[in-house]
Amino acid sequence: MSSVLSVVPSAVPSVVPSAVPSVVILGGGFGGIEAAKALRRAAVRVTLVDRHNHHLFQPLLYQVAMAGLSPADIAWPIRSILRDQANASVRMGEVTGIDLARRLVMLDEAAAASTAPQPVTIPYDYLVLALGSRTVYFGHDDWAAHAVGLKTIEDALEIRRRVLTAFERAETTADGRERQALMTFVIVGGGPTGVELAGALRELARFVLASDFRAIDPASARVVLLEGGRDILSAFPPDLVAAARRQLAALGVEVHVEALVTHVDSGGATVRMPDAAEPNGFREARFESGTVIWAAGVAATPLTATLGVPTDLAGRISVEADLSVPGQNGVFAIGDLAVFTHQTGQPLPGISPVAMQMGRHAAANIVRLTRGQPTQPFRYRDKGMLATIGRSAAVGRVGKLKLRGWLAWMVWWSVHIFFLIGFRNRFIVLFEWVWSYFTYSRGARLITEQHRPPDPRPPP
Amino acid sequence: MSSVLSVVPSAVPSVVPSAVPSVVILGGGFGGIEAAKALRRAAVRVTLVDRHNHHLFQPLLYQVAMAGLSPADIAWPIRSILRDQANASVRMGEVTGIDLARRLVMLDEAAAASTAPQPVTIPYDYLVLALGSRTVYFGHDDWAAHAVGLKTIEDALEIRRRVLTAFERAETTADGRERQALMTFVIVGGGPTGVELAGALRELARFVLASDFRAIDPASARVVLLEGGRDILSAFPPDLVAAARRQLAALGVEVHVEALVTHVDSGGATVRMPDAAEPNGFREARFESGTVIWAAGVAATPLTATLGVPTDLAGRISVEADLSVPGQNGVFAIGDLAVFTHQTGQPLPGISPVAMQMGRHAAANIVRLTRGQPTQPFRYRDKGMLATIGRSAAVGRVGKLKLRGWLAWMVWWSVHIFFLIGFRNRFIVLFEWVWSYFTYSRGARLITEQHRPPDPRPPP
Repeated sequence: MSSVLSVVPSAVPSVVPSAVPSVVILGGGFGGIEAAKALRRAAVRVTLVDRHNHHLFQPLLYQVAMAGLSPADIAWPIRSILRDQANASVRMGEVTGIDLARRLVMLDEAAAASTAPQPVTIPYDYLVLALGSRTVYFGHDDWAAHAVGLKTIEDALEIRRRVLTAFERAETTADGRERQALMTFVIVGGGPTGVELAGALRELARFVLASDFRAIDPASARVVLLEGGRDILSAFPPDLVAAARRQLAALGVEVHVEALVTHVDSGGATVRMPDAAEPNGFREARFESGTVIWAAGVAATPLTATLGVPTDLAGRISVEADLSVPGQNGVFAIGDLAVFTHQTGQPLPGISPVAMQMGRHAAANIVRLTRGQPTQPFRYRDKGMLATIGRSAAVGRVGKLKLRGWLAWMVWWSVHIFFLIGFRNRFIVLFEWVWSYFTYSRGARLITEQHRPPDPRPPP
Repeated sequence: MSSVLSVVPSAVPSVVPSAVPSVVILGGGFGGIEAAKALRRAAVRVTLVDRHNHHLFQPLLYQVAMAGLSPADIAWPIRSILRDQANASVRMGEVTGIDLARRLVMLDEAAAASTAPQPVTIPYDYLVLALGSRTVYFGHDDWAAHAVGLKTIEDALEIRRRVLTAFERAETTADGRERQALMTFVIVGGGPTGVELAGALRELARFVLASDFRAIDPASARVVLLEGGRDILSAFPPDLVAAARRQLAALGVEVHVEALVTHVDSGGATVRMPDAAEPNGFREARFESGTVIWAAGVAATPLTATLGVPTDLAGRISVEADLSVPGQNGVFAIGDLAVFTHQTGQPLPGISPVAMQMGRHAAANIVRLTRGQPTQPFRYRDKGMLATIGRSAAVGRVGKLKLRGWLAWMVWWSVHIFFLIGFRNRFIVLFEWVWSYFTYSRGARLITEQHRPPDPRPPP
């Protein structure tokens, strides 16, 4: 009979005693990673689930889209981040459902070359929802094909591909109208991402590509930044917004505010803009453009709508003061997935410092619950906000101090390099930054495609 | 009437006087780039065509596949390389046909977001064929989906994705057989690329991933290197081959020679191997593997078959002693696309020094033709060859000097960093190399996918 026992496959994962409560964290962004790390000394088992194998330093993602950095410079394997945390494990997979009643998470594990996606169910005692946001198109899902958002590395590489290819095609087309459209870039959304993309795109055209073409002058590329609200950078004080607009104008970015996109197709975008000369106060404008970039709308993952918990219009979960999901014991929502209004009456902004502080706080509340203690309310400690525009151009508020121009730009880079995970990434990004500052070149000007197996067909 | 003249679109590309002969170079690899650069002072117009916007430093491509480098570290925009060469222009497009009789090249320019691929016809006076080689599967095109080759950045990223995902799935599967297959990696082809991939893959598993997983021990990953011929690294002297085999064995790579792959599917590879115990001297072996990598067969682009010129079985054009295409006036073939047997009776190897020397020689012969002078025969100056295996492990022949181990490895890196185009890339690659040497980590461990627009469907 012992021979039977000896063939028990060594394959079965070791079962951790169920006395230790299980914390499942969904999402490896700023909030999820901070929550996992904050639990490193807690008597819990932590499972962090993400559909990618890497944590992404989102604030520098626009640099990948604009050919300044490589994806690996701003991403780091989640396994490496949690390597030395013995109570944490990582699962790569896409969350497909959450059963709050039975305390289960359903996910599809990534397909390997030899295996199909594998559905898996993971039970939890405590759950942290940190799945972040996704790009939405104000109900116009058909715009997605024409206007790429900027949430993932794949998005950034697609924007890079489209922008660089537009210049390639502009160089060779004989049709003047087509050339003009190819050299017009429309960025929808005047928040920090839109402003950063617009500035970096004008600099790419003006400095990096300037002498590489023969038939076109890349420096004449038109970059249009469209903001639907009263002004760009709505979270910033008015004098900093004015400084940002001056810096954008100096770079040659064309800014339109109160400009509502009403249509996007492969040839450009149609916009409703205020015009006092018109009887109804508005006119329709058409921007013929080969490349529309979408930095406007984000919403929570559609999963939140399936949970039967209170959400706002963007699908974000309206959390309690302690970050818990209303009516759910031991379930927390943080970061972009949560809307937290208990501090100022207004929702906290969807930025990484908020997500990180929330992650640490949710972890602390989970530890309190495991000890039978009451949870504590969350308070966001606002250290300020920064937005960069281009070379020596940025605006920022640090505490009550207002910064602009070169100083704001230095602070922006220092903060972003400091928060990049891992010495290696910090170093590479610093090098690329200094290098491109002095040489006006960019290190990642590649047009890459998805992989396709070789075409076995004979040539025509 | 002057108003009519003033609306002539500035769009029309300036027409270069036809008195200057046009040289069209197809392919921006080592051969094509060298040919273009060698023509910088010639009284010709140079047009370099490539389907990518970048020149790829192929010898380091295996490092991208094995998560050590980012694509941008080993690629450089062709436009940048030829930026200051006033007589050169660059066109990004896929060559679809060549009409030798009418001296025309047909190509499809890359599709931009707003425009479909555009067919274009370019006339030439002189033509350099430098389109390189592609992966072939010995007539089994259905293997391509299961065994990725390593020719392009897209290939390298796909291999990286498959290898890293295999470990992810191995970590979570409960099926012991599946886990074993996922942790078995089969590399077909024992040339320098196969040897480099095998060594780097064992090091990835043993050092880089070792402590990142909980359920599996990545260091136990099995790497199988299959060579169909008598031995690996057939172009190297026997004592260096023996040294390479010792170094591979020390790394834990399993090498099988005279092992002919007879079948590849999603579950692994079937191989015919010599076995003296069998009546016919052979046995069939099956390697259950989640990841098969193809470093075995290359052939010229299928376009060569349409030209009506003499080719070898791999479709390479049998060039004359002056690198010209037989029977074609002013048409040259170089690099992997050409088979040159006039020096030793044997074809020159498909390596970058051969391509570069051929590129310069073809350019010189074109200049001679423009001056009405006779062309000169090509002679390859063999400076040696190198193959790396892993940390402090390599073999090399420099002139008549034979190197192995640490010294060969230092020479390998020095040569490769020296030949990388642009100071920036040299510096980054050097940094990544030194960094990973001391930290046993790798900088580009990202699983990335192709871009897909957001899924508008509601969740289940």
